[in-house]
Amino acid sequence: MPSAPRPLYAPHELRRLIAPRSIAIVGASAKPGAFSGRTLENLAHYAGEIHLVNPRYEQLDGRPCHASLSALPSVPDCVVIAVPWQAALEAVREAAAVGAGGAIVYASGFSETGLPERIALQSAMSEIARDSGLRILGPNCLGMANNALGAGLLFQMGYAQLPRPRGRVGLVSQSGALGYALQQGAQHGMAYSHLLTAGNSCDVDALDLAHYLVQDPDCRSVACVFEAAGDADRLQALAEAAREAAKPVVVYKTAVGEAAAAAAQSHTGSLAGSAQAFEAAMRRGGFVRAHSLAELTEMADFLAKAPAPRASGVAVMATSGGAAIMCADASANHGLTLPQPHAEAQAVLDATVPEFGSAHNPCDITGQVLNNPEAFEACARAMLHDDHYGALVLPQVTAGQRMADQRSPVVSALAREAGKPVCIVWLPDWLEGPGAATYQGDEHIGFFRDTERCFRALAAWQDWHRWHAASASPTRTAATAHEPVREQALSLLRQQPMVVTEQAAKQVVALYGLPVVAERAAADAQEAEALAREMPLPLVLKYDAPGIAHKTELGLVRVGLDSAEAVAQAAAQMLASLRERSPGAAPGRFLLQPMERGDFELVLGMKRDPVFGPLVMVGLGGVLIELFGDVATELAPLSPAQAASMLQRLKVYPLLKGYRNKPGVDLDALADLVACFSRLCLDLGDEVEEIDLNPVMARGDRFVAVDALIVRRPAEAPAAQ
Amino acid sequence: MPSAPRPLYAPHELRRLIAPRSIAIVGASAKPGAFSGRTLENLAHYAGEIHLVNPRYEQLDGRPCHASLSALPSVPDCVVIAVPWQAALEAVREAAAVGAGGAIVYASGFSETGLPERIALQSAMSEIARDSGLRILGPNCLGMANNALGAGLLFQMGYAQLPRPRGRVGLVSQSGALGYALQQGAQHGMAYSHLLTAGNSCDVDALDLAHYLVQDPDCRSVACVFEAAGDADRLQALAEAAREAAKPVVVYKTAVGEAAAAAAQSHTGSLAGSAQAFEAAMRRGGFVRAHSLAELTEMADFLAKAPAPRASGVAVMATSGGAAIMCADASANHGLTLPQPHAEAQAVLDATVPEFGSAHNPCDITGQVLNNPEAFEACARAMLHDDHYGALVLPQVTAGQRMADQRSPVVSALAREAGKPVCIVWLPDWLEGPGAATYQGDEHIGFFRDTERCFRALAAWQDWHRWHAASASPTRTAATAHEPVREQALSLLRQQPMVVTEQAAKQVVALYGLPVVAERAAADAQEAEALAREMPLPLVLKYDAPGIAHKTELGLVRVGLDSAEAVAQAAAQMLASLRERSPGAAPGRFLLQPMERGDFELVLGMKRDPVFGPLVMVGLGGVLIELFGDVATELAPLSPAQAASMLQRLKVYPLLKGYRNKPGVDLDALADLVACFSRLCLDLGDEVEEIDLNPVMARGDRFVAVDALIVRRPAEAPAAQ
Repeated sequence: MPSAPRPLYAPHELRRLIAPRSIAIVGASAKPGAFSGRTLENLAHYAGEIHLVNPRYEQLDGRPCHASLSALPSVPDCVVIAVPWQAALEAVREAAAVGAGGAIVYASGFSETGLPERIALQSAMSEIARDSGLRILGPNCLGMANNALGAGLLFQMGYAQLPRPRGRVGLVSQSGALGYALQQGAQHGMAYSHLLTAGNSCDVDALDLAHYLVQDPDCRSVACVFEAAGDADRLQALAEAAREAAKPVVVYKTAVGEAAAAAAQSHTGSLAGSAQAFEAAMRRGGFVRAHSLAELTEMADFLAKAPAPRASGVAVMATSGGAAIMCADASANHGLTLPQPHAEAQAVLDATVPEFGSAHNPCDITGQVLNNPEAFEACARAMLHDDHYGALVLPQVTAGQRMADQRSPVVSALAREAGKPVCIVWLPDWLEGPGAATYQGDEHIGFFRDTERCFRALAAWQDWHRWHAASASPTRTAATAHEPVREQALSLLRQQPMVVTEQAAKQVVALYGLPVVAERAAADAQEAEALAREMPLPLVLKYDAPGIAHKTELGLVRVGLDSAEAVAQAAAQMLASLRERSPGAAPGRFLLQPMERGDFELVLGMKRDPVFGPLVMVGLGGVLIELFGDVATELAPLSPAQAASMLQRLKVYPLLKGYRNKPGVDLDALADLVACFSRLCLDLGDEVEEIDLNPVMARGDRFVAVDALIVRRPAEAPAAQ
Repeated sequence: MPSAPRPLYAPHELRRLIAPRSIAIVGASAKPGAFSGRTLENLAHYAGEIHLVNPRYEQLDGRPCHASLSALPSVPDCVVIAVPWQAALEAVREAAAVGAGGAIVYASGFSETGLPERIALQSAMSEIARDSGLRILGPNCLGMANNALGAGLLFQMGYAQLPRPRGRVGLVSQSGALGYALQQGAQHGMAYSHLLTAGNSCDVDALDLAHYLVQDPDCRSVACVFEAAGDADRLQALAEAAREAAKPVVVYKTAVGEAAAAAAQSHTGSLAGSAQAFEAAMRRGGFVRAHSLAELTEMADFLAKAPAPRASGVAVMATSGGAAIMCADASANHGLTLPQPHAEAQAVLDATVPEFGSAHNPCDITGQVLNNPEAFEACARAMLHDDHYGALVLPQVTAGQRMADQRSPVVSALAREAGKPVCIVWLPDWLEGPGAATYQGDEHIGFFRDTERCFRALAAWQDWHRWHAASASPTRTAATAHEPVREQALSLLRQQPMVVTEQAAKQVVALYGLPVVAERAAADAQEAEALAREMPLPLVLKYDAPGIAHKTELGLVRVGLDSAEAVAQAAAQMLASLRERSPGAAPGRFLLQPMERGDFELVLGMKRDPVFGPLVMVGLGGVLIELFGDVATELAPLSPAQAASMLQRLKVYPLLKGYRNKPGVDLDALADLVACFSRLCLDLGDEVEEIDLNPVMARGDRFVAVDALIVRRPAEAPAAQ
């Protein structure tokens, strides 16, 4: 069940849960392997107070054991609830009653079972959270770790044995297992500040946790594994907080496909947002995307380490021609350039690199230079000080501790001095071989085990800083709501059937100032014929009846009618055909429109996403576009600038700009149109499921919607009993 | 420099090089760090004879040292040449003279320097190879290792310390450094039979090495890192050998982009084939593609382990919902299905999986089942014996030696018993954590460190076996050459300018039985007018002059001319316009053609690839197709069946098939046409650079090329002095 649409918790509301000064474990037990005992082991390095609670013991493992939370000498900040599901609700209630700050519920057996009574049990837990100051993590949750405090509030064995270097990256995962899988990277130099897992999220969810970390000075970037997308407003609030803190949030989203979303349903019982809407929300919020667990951790670690880029070029110093070539491939794949050095750096390379190497970028400095510390340092310094370059990539082909110990302090100092990151691409399939952790652990050295991932991260780093710099600009503001128009549009819609008539749909669209074709309505064939005599020929005739979404298929659209007689005849045919094919259809009206022509037929559309609301779509019409899936989607509302960059993502954008002597359209006018349409989508989004303006005829700066379809949203079904 | 176009070496020609019974090291030295000394260290486990050669020593390290190769007591199979480039040629000459079987030249400083005198030095080495039975690896080469023999004939330190389990995968790399980077995976359970690196390939190249491994019983799959593509015939010969041996060859190709190819140029001085031609050659040969080093090794190892698929469905048993969801995402991404189990297996799951897990595919059996060996085994057995499933995927979320020791023999035995592979997806970021090598080392367990890579490998495994089964079928045969037609076409072309006239181009095309528009030629405007009176209207008029490739841009094409007068007038205008815009143009002729119409305008084309020869291209015409890059390419020649599957790769294929009540074309007839065109391309490919039939009007089973462009290939420039 998605969490209630409340604002994100502020950091201070979660502090007692996530950074507790004292901890109680309810359900403490002497049984080997018990979750309580494992938690106690994982608290080996925790310096705060720990209280054990279980009425069946007076003492456990040499510690006093208390009968209940209320029997404790002081109120604990965080209560770990290590009892089975049957007893968990009562324990949560007691934690709230004594005034604890947070509770972690390990037990499974709640809404993830899909059983109505267990869903209700979880709802009861949510209610306690809502009615008290108690913040609850779980149920069905691995727990969390605050590494700076040594607070391993989780039941996974072995936490206390993991290295806990000073944290750089905060880790949030809906899935506890995946979160802990990542946390194990501490074994090779990954430095996490926290591991926070959300489980079923009866109260605190993954977005709240990421929001906490974004504002926590212990980490410099946040890595998230999300299954469900949360909701649009809270995701955007997280984005805003991250923007203000200038802290990149990297997201790996699972449950992307339909089958996967179905699996997610049965897992944490959460709703996975549709892929396109989620992508749009990510773009809007400046989230950095990762597409695998490895990419998530490497990218988050790099973003935590790297200062803002000072130049876009990348320098590559390989000690193998093969590795240099892989870097050239990868940089091309990710739109990065490997410019040649300025004369000064070039001179250093020329003087240093032997004839069988390559003194260009990407360099192959050869093993000969690698084994000569002075020569290596001279090349690296020259490249890092060349202002063509914002980063230096050093592929490594063999594992070796001695080399890493020599080399890492040198490149780390050079990186710090130049204010530019150095990236190691670790190519040995000896993945954690000697030297790897040395580089990974360094504050100034990005560490990647794959060439493509390194260059993707460099591109993401540049993109994120560009986004962050641009995000303060005022062009982001979308058109503001105009309440009277909205009221008028909604009252018009509410009188309509679920499939709104074309005429009414166009009226709604026109209310927002969007250009629609001029049309006149006629009650019957005779009236249509009469109207036709007053209109410029040729004409389009349509029969617009309530509930009919696809007129063309029913023969209810005729174009190019060039006389009033032709209109009369077409009208008669339509009625006859309709009587035959849909005898029960409600009576409608004839619409007469002039023939509109354009250089392009555009489609503007909207589909309401259950999580993110109105998703605006724009593209060219036609069967080819359909086959190629060339549409751009963004969440409403859009500023004209946002609409313009949406148009730029279309593969047919060159056509719209004007291609090979063929005229394009006025792109500024089109962006304004899309922005205006997005405002309509946002205003009506709660009551409308779909909108289609198809086609919108476009020529120069003239745009005319000649058809409009609006499908209303069914009223919410009453809540299940 | 690409190696000469000779056939691949047969395995017996390479045996003394790659599987030597005795070894000599020329340039043996007592100097610390010398390549000879490192080689000697790397031979610590080698049981054959080792001879040291250096006139400056009588003894080295307690071994006798000989003055020259001819002074050895017996002729060595393989000679390691560990001297600087200045002395290498002489050493190679001596190795050939004494009748050694192979030589490995470490030294850099040959053609990779780009210096003419060093290129000549390497050519001299090639000549020795050509004139003797000596097979040479290198120069500029790391060397090679035959792991079964413990023959570490390479200068990379540390080889003797690597584990050498019984080999499954043979490893070939043009780049020595990348090859050794992979070999280091032996540290975590990868079992390579050989590491063979090619360096500059003055004689033996990467294709020869792969060809050797394909026929070597020590390995069951071959993993290749290629920079250059070699040549088409030898690549195809490798493919044939692999097909006969039923041994998958997995290829990771670097130097894909232009910048990367330029880097390759300066690295091994070898020519990187154009990306599309290489892709086509890979498809044709049934090579398995990998897109990263990690994918290369995981996929090759899996293909070495997995028997032929028995069903296409995949079963997933995760112990975490998050991991199950990742599997569902990945299976969708790679076109694999996760069907639900039959009743029998379902009953086992229902009885075993707790309510907070998921008893469907993908299963979340939960940690509870994981920690119960009987329950786990029951579930795994049930899924593996369900004939919906061809493979079972088991994601692991934590590292642990005890669990791996318990679990791997159980799943290995189940996999063997069912004749189906079990795949571990290792999710802990503790990449080489306890247990990983245990799974990786097992003969029946595929091992992957990334969910996507696991499912991509499962898809590649199914694809390869499908390809292998189909590759024996007779439909693969392409149209055979028809020598008289070819002679006629070539003699016609040889009389033409480099840009062949449209009329001559159409004549060549028609010789192959391809349908071209009927046309008549006129010497001047009067004759054109006269001809027009005899032809059905409307007409197309073109002015066809030697050397003009793009008539439309010059106003030399007029369509829809509906009277003889209109033809006369258009002809006069063309001449006037040509006089003005290209005053020096050679005189040409008018062509008169009937207007051909079609439901589609197709483009058939050919571009000669310098490595792979004629690359055939097919697609729809038009600007949208251009923007979307929707063309299919294959190497000539093509059978009709191959042409048909090429058409299926087009995104517009649904249109060609018939889409939404719109008629398609006769696809069999089109496939025949493409196959026939491919024959033409192959026949003329040595003398023609490009061919364009654009457009080919298509309706039903009627296809007519209304324009044809052929650009001849310049004669080879005389070799540089």
